[in-house]
Amino acid sequence: MDAISVIRAKRDREELTGEQIDWIIDAYTRGTVADEQMSALAMAVYLNGMTRTEISRWTAAMIASGERMDFTALPRPTADKHSTGGVGDKITLPLAPLVAACGAAVPQLSGRGLGHTGGTLDKLESIPGWRASLTNPEMMDVLRDAGSVICAAGDGLAPADKRLYALRDVTGTVESLPLIASSIMSKKIAEGTGALVLDVKAGSGAFMKNADDARELATTMVELGRDHGVRTVALLTDMNTPLGLTAGNALEVRESVEVLAGGGPADVVELTVALAREMLDAAGLTDADPAKALADGSAMDVWRRMVTAQGGDADADLPRAREQHVVTAPSSGVLTRLDAYSVGLAAWRLGAGRARKEDPVQAGAGVELHARVGDRVAAGAPLLTLHTDTPETFAHAEEALTAAIDVTASGTYEPTPLILDRIE
Amino acid sequence: MDAISVIRAKRDREELTGEQIDWIIDAYTRGTVADEQMSALAMAVYLNGMTRTEISRWTAAMIASGERMDFTALPRPTADKHSTGGVGDKITLPLAPLVAACGAAVPQLSGRGLGHTGGTLDKLESIPGWRASLTNPEMMDVLRDAGSVICAAGDGLAPADKRLYALRDVTGTVESLPLIASSIMSKKIAEGTGALVLDVKAGSGAFMKNADDARELATTMVELGRDHGVRTVALLTDMNTPLGLTAGNALEVRESVEVLAGGGPADVVELTVALAREMLDAAGLTDADPAKALADGSAMDVWRRMVTAQGGDADADLPRAREQHVVTAPSSGVLTRLDAYSVGLAAWRLGAGRARKEDPVQAGAGVELHARVGDRVAAGAPLLTLHTDTPETFAHAEEALTAAIDVTASGTYEPTPLILDRIE
Repeated sequence: MDAISVIRAKRDREELTGEQIDWIIDAYTRGTVADEQMSALAMAVYLNGMTRTEISRWTAAMIASGERMDFTALPRPTADKHSTGGVGDKITLPLAPLVAACGAAVPQLSGRGLGHTGGTLDKLESIPGWRASLTNPEMMDVLRDAGSVICAAGDGLAPADKRLYALRDVTGTVESLPLIASSIMSKKIAEGTGALVLDVKAGSGAFMKNADDARELATTMVELGRDHGVRTVALLTDMNTPLGLTAGNALEVRESVEVLAGGGPADVVELTVALAREMLDAAGLTDADPAKALADGSAMDVWRRMVTAQGGDADADLPRAREQHVVTAPSSGVLTRLDAYSVGLAAWRLGAGRARKEDPVQAGAGVELHARVGDRVAAGAPLLTLHTDTPETFAHAEEALTAAIDVTASGTYEPTPLILDRIE
Repeated sequence: MDAISVIRAKRDREELTGEQIDWIIDAYTRGTVADEQMSALAMAVYLNGMTRTEISRWTAAMIASGERMDFTALPRPTADKHSTGGVGDKITLPLAPLVAACGAAVPQLSGRGLGHTGGTLDKLESIPGWRASLTNPEMMDVLRDAGSVICAAGDGLAPADKRLYALRDVTGTVESLPLIASSIMSKKIAEGTGALVLDVKAGSGAFMKNADDARELATTMVELGRDHGVRTVALLTDMNTPLGLTAGNALEVRESVEVLAGGGPADVVELTVALAREMLDAAGLTDADPAKALADGSAMDVWRRMVTAQGGDADADLPRAREQHVVTAPSSGVLTRLDAYSVGLAAWRLGAGRARKEDPVQAGAGVELHARVGDRVAAGAPLLTLHTDTPETFAHAEEALTAAIDVTASGTYEPTPLILDRIE
C-alpha cells in the first residue's frame, strides 16, 4: 500500500477500498503520508466525490485515529448538537444549559471561528475570566456540577480530522460534502455522545448555498451517526438572513443571555426550543418541557453555574467596542432582504472573526440589526449598527453591505420558514 | 492574490488569468506557496485541464523562475532533442555526437530515470570515469571541443519546474498533458537552444498509451516552442515494443556504440538518422548527411572526444551483471507481441532503474532481446536474457514478462511503422 496508488485510484474515479482508506488515514496521522499527498487526495475527493460506503469508512478511520470519550458513567443520558455554521448562530449558548436544565447531560465540545461565521469558543471568551481549555477531569466536573459544559475539544479526539481540517483550509478543499460530513461526524462520534442533533444550514451565510445540497449533507450525516450507534436527527434551517439581531462575540453572548432570561428574538427562541426538543427526544427524555425551562429561570441557573465553573464572571459587564457607526435605511418600505453572508463578512472585517488561525478576535466587534426581514422601515432610520475597536475598518465593512439590503416600497413580503425540514 | 483563490478558480473550472499564473509560479519558487497548496492545484489541473493560453503562460512563468542559457556566442547553430521516454530509448547517445559531426552544436541537458524508463545520465554513468555534473564553463568547453555535450541540467534552469516535477512524482499528478508539456518545454526553452526536435512516444511503454493523446501532446509542445521563438518539430513514434535489442544502462551504451560504429539494430539506426535529419534541418544545416557521418566514423570520433572530455574512458570495458537468466520461447511461430512496458518493468526490477530519487542503479542490469516482433522463433530457443547483480530479482522480473510475449503458430504479422507522424 502506498499513497500514490490511493491518490491515483480516487483521481481515476475508482471507489477506494476499506483497506486503502484505513491505511491512508492511519499513515497520515502518523506522518508517513505527507501533507502534499493528502491535499492532492482531498482535491481528487472534492472533484470526484465519494460513495456512502467510502464516507462511512473514512469517518470510522478518523475516529479510530484517536481516543473516543465515554460518558456512560454519568447518571444522565447525553445529548449533543452540531451546527454547520451560520451568521449570528449563537444557539449553542442558550441551548446547552437549556437541555441540561431538562435533565440531559450536554458535553458540547466546540471550535473557534474561521472566515465569516463566528466560533462558539470565541463568543464565550468575551466573558471575563472564562476558560475554553479544560482537562478531561475538569470537563467531567463541570458536566457533573452544572449539567452542561462548552469547551475546546482535546487533541486526542480524531487527530486525523484535526490535521486534515487545517490542511483543507489552505488548499481550497473545504466545501466538499464527503469531507465536511466525515469531519463533523468523526469529531462528534469520538466525543462519545449517545444522541446527536444536527442543525444543517442552507443559504447565503452557510457552507451549503442551496437546500438540496444541505439536505444531501444532512442525510449523509444522519446515516453516519446511525452507522456508529448514535441516535442522530437533523433539522434543515434557513441561513439566507442572520439568526437573531446580532453577529459578533460579546454581542451574541448578550443576546443569548436575553433568551435564557425568557426574552430575545423570536427566531433564536424558536430554533433553540426546537433543537432542545429534538435533543431531549433523542436522549429519551420525551416528557421534558424546554419552553418551561426558559420561562422559569432553570436554564439560566444552569448557564450561570456552567460559566462560573469555567472561571467566568456571569455578572460581569461584557466588553463593548470603542466605536460605533450606524447604517440607515436607503428608502422607505419593507425590508425584503438582509443578506446573511454580507453581514457575516462585515462582522468579520470589523474584527469579530479571524483570517488566520493565530489571529486574535475583538470581543466587542460585530453587527447589530435594528430591523428584521419583513419589517417596515423608514428612509434614514437606523438599520444596522457596526461595532469595532478599529474604526478604519468601517468603510470596508460597509462595502460588504452595499448589495446586501433590499427595501421595497410596495408589495407584500412572503416570509420563509426558519425550519425547512427534519431528517432522521 | 493568494494561493487559495487560484486553487479555487481551477477547481471550479475557470481559466486562470496570466496574473494568477505568474503569481503562483513565482510564489511557489520563492516558497511562499506551500507544497500542499501546489499539489492541490496540480490535481485540479490534472482533472480540469488547462487551455492553450494557460499552458503557454504557465510555461513562460516556469522559464522566468530561473536563468536562461545563451549559446549565440558559439560559431555553430544549436539543436536539441527531447524524448518523452520509452523502453530501450538510448537514441540520445548516438544522436548527439552524430548531429555534432554534421555541423550543429548539441547541448543535451538530460535527466535520470525514475520508474520503468531509463535515464540518459544513468546509462552514461556506466562508462568508467564519466561525469554527469559539469559547471557551465566546463559544459561550454566540452561543447566547443567536441561539438556535443550530454550532462545534468544545473539547478538554475526552471527551478519552479524542478520543484513541481518532484512534487508531481509523489502526488499522482504526473500524467497530465498541460503539466507534462509545460515541464518539458520550460526546461528545453530555458536551455537556450535555437532548434528543438521532440520524439513523442505512444504505446504501452510510453507516458501516452494511445497515439491521439501523444499527438495532442506533440502539437501543444510544438506550439509552445513556436511561442518562444524556438524552431520545433515533433516526430510521433511507436513505443509498444522496446526500441533496439537492449533495455538497461551499460547494455544500451554498448548498443549505442554499435550504431556509431555503423552497425546496430535497424530501428535504432532508423530513428537516430530521422531525428538527426530533423535537427539539422531545424538548425538550417540542410546539406548535412547523417547516414554518411555514421558510415565514415566521424560521429564515432565526436562520441569519443565527448566521453573523454567528461572524464570517461571510451575504450574501457563496460560493466556486466554478475548473473544471467535466459527466457525461452514458449512455442514455435511468429513473435507477434513483446510488450514494451513489461520489458521496462522487468529491467527496472532487475536493478536498472530506481524506485526513489536517491536509490542507486546497477550498471549491468537489464534485459537483452534475442528476437524482435515479427521474427520467427522456435519453442525453447532463447528469447530474452535477464541480467542482474541481484539474482533474487529474477523471479519478480520474469513475473513482469508473463503476459508480455505472444507467439502465434500460423498467420502473418503486419508490422507497424516506427515513425507514425510528423508534427510542425
